[in-house]
Amino acid sequence: MIFIESKDNTLYKETKKLKDRKGRNKISKYIIEGFRLIEEAFKAGVSVDYIFFSGEVEKLNEYLGKYINKTKIYGLRDDLLRELCSTEKPQGIVAVVGMKKLDISFEGSFYLLCDKLQDPGNLGTIIRTAHAAGVDGVILTKGSVDVYNDKTIRSTMGSLFHIPIINDDENNSITKKLIDRGFSLVSTSLEGDKDFFKEDLTGKIIISVGNEGNGVSEEIYNLSDKKVKVPMPGGAESLNVAIATSVILYEKVRQNS
Amino acid sequence: MIFIESKDNTLYKETKKLKDRKGRNKISKYIIEGFRLIEEAFKAGVSVDYIFFSGEVEKLNEYLGKYINKTKIYGLRDDLLRELCSTEKPQGIVAVVGMKKLDISFEGSFYLLCDKLQDPGNLGTIIRTAHAAGVDGVILTKGSVDVYNDKTIRSTMGSLFHIPIINDDENNSITKKLIDRGFSLVSTSLEGDKDFFKEDLTGKIIISVGNEGNGVSEEIYNLSDKKVKVPMPGGAESLNVAIATSVILYEKVRQNS
Repeated sequence: MIFIESKDNTLYKETKKLKDRKGRNKISKYIIEGFRLIEEAFKAGVSVDYIFFSGEVEKLNEYLGKYINKTKIYGLRDDLLRELCSTEKPQGIVAVVGMKKLDISFEGSFYLLCDKLQDPGNLGTIIRTAHAAGVDGVILTKGSVDVYNDKTIRSTMGSLFHIPIINDDENNSITKKLIDRGFSLVSTSLEGDKDFFKEDLTGKIIISVGNEGNGVSEEIYNLSDKKVKVPMPGGAESLNVAIATSVILYEKVRQNS
Repeated sequence: MIFIESKDNTLYKETKKLKDRKGRNKISKYIIEGFRLIEEAFKAGVSVDYIFFSGEVEKLNEYLGKYINKTKIYGLRDDLLRELCSTEKPQGIVAVVGMKKLDISFEGSFYLLCDKLQDPGNLGTIIRTAHAAGVDGVILTKGSVDVYNDKTIRSTMGSLFHIPIINDDENNSITKKLIDRGFSLVSTSLEGDKDFFKEDLTGKIIISVGNEGNGVSEEIYNLSDKKVKVPMPGGAESLNVAIATSVILYEKVRQNS
């Protein structure tokens, strides 16, 4: 195992650039942190480029032994490794992995559209729930928080590796293509026409949810053929967006069952 | 307006003690932070003991003018005020408010039981959703995170002031009393018998959800007459507890509608 001791090491410097969205997009790679997440990545067949590690090699072997015999592993000075981490108590391990290039297959029947969502934790929780609910893919509109943000990745609890995430362009081309192929676009907002559970959600559907402050954007709203709301019989003013998304996704699960 | 300049001021020192659960429980008061939350407290008729404030009085007047003519307001040195705050960008205002003494009325028909929940953000989000869904009260078992934790309060977005929160004792006396009065106790777990949407949730019901790592405790599980799960057709390993709670609460809303 090569041991990197200098902050001027080229690979280390290149890796540090992945802490920014720009750096990530440039080479289509991102950083994941911690044993559990890295194990999930291997299990899901994600391409792991290399691992930086500090600490006892026994631990590395114990957790990841069966996956890493073909993976490049570099020892890294602990303080340098910490700079790649964003958790409060880093476990001394990060991996650099490749973004999956995803062409939408149009073969699914259940998509989730997140429209300019801003909070990384919300997006991560939504991806985790979408995975659980059997969503075929999550579409992000232009202007959404980066799915490879470290907080988003952590909140997905590994679901990121299992569900296609698709960045749409500024014209919402993918969404429009899905609509052309017979998908119904259901928008959620506080002023929706119907309670979500009174709408037919079976069949080919895109459920769209909006950003934390403003809801679904005008463009998406205008593309929608159905508009639903989550009723609040108890009188609260609003719901967390991940919560609102989840109750609707699960209503589709219920209707399909 | 009295202006407090010393950290040795008695009222300031007493208030600082409210940063700990022990201090809060001793005098049944807690701290809330920021204009919006304090306004919500006034609107909900919560008893506001006093306000500490730093900054321009005009702002105070603009946001809270119509509520505060009978409230004691103290100017406080900005750095001292910050020590009472837990947000990254404090707005220069905190209020000390009294915990509501709540006797459960047993008149409702829809309770939520949170069993040893540990994450303050999760509890707050759950309280917000419970309020929206029209839950009559949230019961916390002994060993749960404190509802007056600053992060919990923030995550409730003011719903804390609108919905009864009941701390049960180590014998789950309140839950048992509700069961005696004809309430069905529905436990959720990964090994539940039925998908939650296939169970009858109409009628008098307590929905119980467990802690992040271990789920519902044995005691609560044994008291339950119904055991349900949230299915995960997409194959994720688990759901965030606030998400799982919310989809079940909203299934009850749906069945009742």
